[in-house]
Amino acid sequence: MSSSSDASSTAALVIIGNEVLSGRTQDANAAWLARRLGVLGIPLREIRVVPDERPAIMEAVSLLAQRETYVFTTGGIGPTHDDITTESVAAAFGTPVRRNPEAEARLRAHYGAGGDLNAARLKMADMPEGAVLIDNPVSAAPGFRLGNVFVLAGVPAIMRAMVDGIAHHLSPGAPILSAAVSAPVREGDLAEPLAALQQAWPTVDIGSYPFARGNRIGASVVVRGTDDAALRQVAAAVVDIMRGLGEEPEVTEPQPPVAEAGS
Amino acid sequence: MSSSSDASSTAALVIIGNEVLSGRTQDANAAWLARRLGVLGIPLREIRVVPDERPAIMEAVSLLAQRETYVFTTGGIGPTHDDITTESVAAAFGTPVRRNPEAEARLRAHYGAGGDLNAARLKMADMPEGAVLIDNPVSAAPGFRLGNVFVLAGVPAIMRAMVDGIAHHLSPGAPILSAAVSAPVREGDLAEPLAALQQAWPTVDIGSYPFARGNRIGASVVVRGTDDAALRQVAAAVVDIMRGLGEEPEVTEPQPPVAEAGS
Repeated sequence: MSSSSDASSTAALVIIGNEVLSGRTQDANAAWLARRLGVLGIPLREIRVVPDERPAIMEAVSLLAQRETYVFTTGGIGPTHDDITTESVAAAFGTPVRRNPEAEARLRAHYGAGGDLNAARLKMADMPEGAVLIDNPVSAAPGFRLGNVFVLAGVPAIMRAMVDGIAHHLSPGAPILSAAVSAPVREGDLAEPLAALQQAWPTVDIGSYPFARGNRIGASVVVRGTDDAALRQVAAAVVDIMRGLGEEPEVTEPQPPVAEAGS
Repeated sequence: MSSSSDASSTAALVIIGNEVLSGRTQDANAAWLARRLGVLGIPLREIRVVPDERPAIMEAVSLLAQRETYVFTTGGIGPTHDDITTESVAAAFGTPVRRNPEAEARLRAHYGAGGDLNAARLKMADMPEGAVLIDNPVSAAPGFRLGNVFVLAGVPAIMRAMVDGIAHHLSPGAPILSAAVSAPVREGDLAEPLAALQQAWPTVDIGSYPFARGNRIGASVVVRGTDDAALRQVAAAVVDIMRGLGEEPEVTEPQPPVAEAGS
């Protein structure tokens, strides 16, 4: 079913997000990070949205850090009382939190010599012992890496800049390519030949997704993997299946995810 | 930090979604379900996106079904080979899957006497033993409830119709209201008085969220809970804090989530 288990590195994302859990905010980071990691050949294996509560953050980070190569967290590293990601990740590793001189210097440079750098903002310079800072080119307050956990801001522009800054530290795999074959066919008519095709190509992920565009019902078959030639053969077989149903499908060539496409 | 632990019922959502994990698809169900449950007074405590793989689905469903009052799953109940939610949820409960006569009758009525109801589509009538069907007014193939797990379609229009059909079976709590107070202030200037306010009102969740609208930087303070009068008092205190910073905030009154707002 999955070619991703062959990849050398894997990732998980923990979204610290009461606002996502309440439905007030639509997360905008997961899809972007998934595509960015796909380009690097690092499949995202799980996303968890947990409340802004220390035990929930600790549990998710601890478990996923053991299971996946990399864990990313977003949110909860600002100056307010509900920003508890740093202390929670530190607790997950059993590591104390201390004022980080380099982080403090960056905040001092950003906020200047006036009274702006108050106690609340200085809290953003508190880091787990042994944390490696992650640059924040937007608003100075750094993220950090602790072990295999990367603690990122929740504001999308800052999160993206942070990932761009650390991407070269991640162990890449072969980029994960996908091709799509879409036509106004019904999934139930595709299912049997598609199952046979999946059996014949165990290293290619074949997914079938129904869609409705206005009154037009159809299915997109997405083939995903790291082997361009294999994807082209599987996509061609899907084209044949759809032609056998009397429809000429639209096809997109195998390509890596487009990391910058908005969501 | 959380008033939600006082609520009688809680929920979790498991999204079965290779397409979400790859970043190709932006999930559209979580935010809607979160708001729908908020109206019912059932806080969504966790969202997990897991791959279309039986062990991953089983693990998430088993753990969350023990922890929360209700678990909802979306996706993976169609006719194709990658639709493995039914068998995975059944396996999580140690329950065999059998052809369900009522589900089969609904599919036969929907697909008619021609050859359309092929073996792949009939698979959608296979249900865990003891499952209670969930109506699908859009395309017939039912979801199901097994224990406290509600297995829903991934197509948003069908998922929403299914939830509307089962909502009266859920044990409601007091609707979760939220008010927002927003102004062009910086979070770091709010942090100290806001922390004191949170300490004084432990049954109200106070969250602070920075925003950028064009060049305008600001913060929205969201106060959430079930006690309208308490929310009004806390929101008024936030208004005073922001006025103390020289800004006149925009305020939205305490209200339940708007379940129909699109995203």
